[in-house]
Amino acid sequence: MELVTGGAGFIGSHLVDVLVAQGKSVRVFDNLSSGREEFLAHHGDSVEIIQADLLNYDDVKAAMAGIETVHHLAANPDIRLGTEVTDTDLRQGTIATYNVLEAMRVSGVKRISFASSSAIYGEADVMPTPETYGPVKPISLYGASKLSSEALISAWCGTFGAKSWLHRFANIVGSRGTHGVIFDFIHKLKADPTRLEVLGDGRQEKSYMSAEDCVRAMVHLVDGVDEDVNLYNLGTGDTCSVRRIAEIVVEESGFENVSIEYTGGKRGWAGDVPKTSLDVEYLFSTGFVPSMQSEAAIRYTARALIDEIGL
Amino acid sequence: MELVTGGAGFIGSHLVDVLVAQGKSVRVFDNLSSGREEFLAHHGDSVEIIQADLLNYDDVKAAMAGIETVHHLAANPDIRLGTEVTDTDLRQGTIATYNVLEAMRVSGVKRISFASSSAIYGEADVMPTPETYGPVKPISLYGASKLSSEALISAWCGTFGAKSWLHRFANIVGSRGTHGVIFDFIHKLKADPTRLEVLGDGRQEKSYMSAEDCVRAMVHLVDGVDEDVNLYNLGTGDTCSVRRIAEIVVEESGFENVSIEYTGGKRGWAGDVPKTSLDVEYLFSTGFVPSMQSEAAIRYTARALIDEIGL
Repeated sequence: MELVTGGAGFIGSHLVDVLVAQGKSVRVFDNLSSGREEFLAHHGDSVEIIQADLLNYDDVKAAMAGIETVHHLAANPDIRLGTEVTDTDLRQGTIATYNVLEAMRVSGVKRISFASSSAIYGEADVMPTPETYGPVKPISLYGASKLSSEALISAWCGTFGAKSWLHRFANIVGSRGTHGVIFDFIHKLKADPTRLEVLGDGRQEKSYMSAEDCVRAMVHLVDGVDEDVNLYNLGTGDTCSVRRIAEIVVEESGFENVSIEYTGGKRGWAGDVPKTSLDVEYLFSTGFVPSMQSEAAIRYTARALIDEIGL
Repeated sequence: MELVTGGAGFIGSHLVDVLVAQGKSVRVFDNLSSGREEFLAHHGDSVEIIQADLLNYDDVKAAMAGIETVHHLAANPDIRLGTEVTDTDLRQGTIATYNVLEAMRVSGVKRISFASSSAIYGEADVMPTPETYGPVKPISLYGASKLSSEALISAWCGTFGAKSWLHRFANIVGSRGTHGVIFDFIHKLKADPTRLEVLGDGRQEKSYMSAEDCVRAMVHLVDGVDEDVNLYNLGTGDTCSVRRIAEIVVEESGFENVSIEYTGGKRGWAGDVPKTSLDVEYLFSTGFVPSMQSEAAIRYTARALIDEIGL
């Protein structure tokens, strides 16, 4: 059986879809703080859902019974929150990961696939940024918690003998999104269809990947590569600017004469990385091919979220 | 005023000596779990000592009054402990660092110098290992907590505006040692002068640096380099084997016909890195010159600890 933490969330629920399609039994562990049961409703009773918090160690330990691989995706999804509340990422990121690892250790569970992030690179001076880039200097508390979780997982593998897959995600977009720039833009347009405020100068430029491609890549790696610690960037190999995302969302909204306004400055907020570009040659070398590039993933996401949110 | 966490400890007390010699006012924050007040006794009342624990946030916050630079050295010094107790490094490393950073933020303290470790590199496949090596995969829980602390400090600098100096220490040896291989060997010889048991095959080989050189390098960097995040390996540029350390300690003990016995295996314990060699060209490029190479630092330490412990 597979355990998916955050399995009712945005990316987690897509991963559950793929695992179920593979014929796997799936147990979801989610506190439903940003995840939603409706994202899993189409599976009926075939997916077990434990509504609990990773900070309650006893619940985490109980969830390990009969598990072969833990897919650890639960985390605070709101990177910006760290600028105001400083212990969220420490608790829901680093300490939650510790609880997962400790529960695995005492239960004899030996495989963990982890949703890390390109946020760990901070403002890298090599672009596209390969996995071998160092030293990594995250500039957000979210990025710090992802790097801390990678470190804990690596140490658990080295000390107690376990296998891990660390996936450093590009910006992941898609249906069931509960946060992020496209989600924000749609909500802003819904509130006022005449104007769209963009945080920063709009020239922030990042790698985007569809959630479907992302979870397909995760499973591809877990099934296909077999070092003790398997660490890969997950992305599409290209980038898209926030300015272009704003244009695409406006196009897909169908609203006319929307005034796109920029708050200015190179960052959307303190801790926002203005430009990220992931080197994904290592992923591609395993035979994985994404179905959509960044701009296609964004347009598809804009359509899906407009459909979900309604304008 | 300067705040030194772990200032009554092995390396911390040497740092206090250097800061006092520079004419700085010094406040020490130490829970005296491995530190000792006698290591600071020669300073009399000129050094303020707060006996408190970094896990008590209110105490940490109170200690920030009037501080210009925090020198954060407090941590669990026993790397091996992580193989048996898994939350020590998380608490005394990562969470303690979070408390230091949060107390700095709310108090407006903007400079932190941090004792990181070569343990973050795990089993690097590039030796000597430069700061640019990546991805780093620590294999000990101690190494994970040091990488997590680096990540938190980097994120605090990026999000809230602060300056940091991250020092990735080689194995630091010297007087006032309270743990480590030389300390262990002397205690073993004291218990039984006829034989010396060495964990592993003795071919573990690491970079060593004297505590005096280490703290001199720390102060040299804090005073001399000025990026937002200044990250340096601290070491001597050479290595010494555990086998050679055993021979040196036996020589300095004066005991004759000691049988040196190896438990075998390439590691001393799970999470022990068999070979570390730090590339220190970046440190040397700043003009720093260590006074002792690895073997000289070990012989000097053996003499000092035999003197302190008594045989």
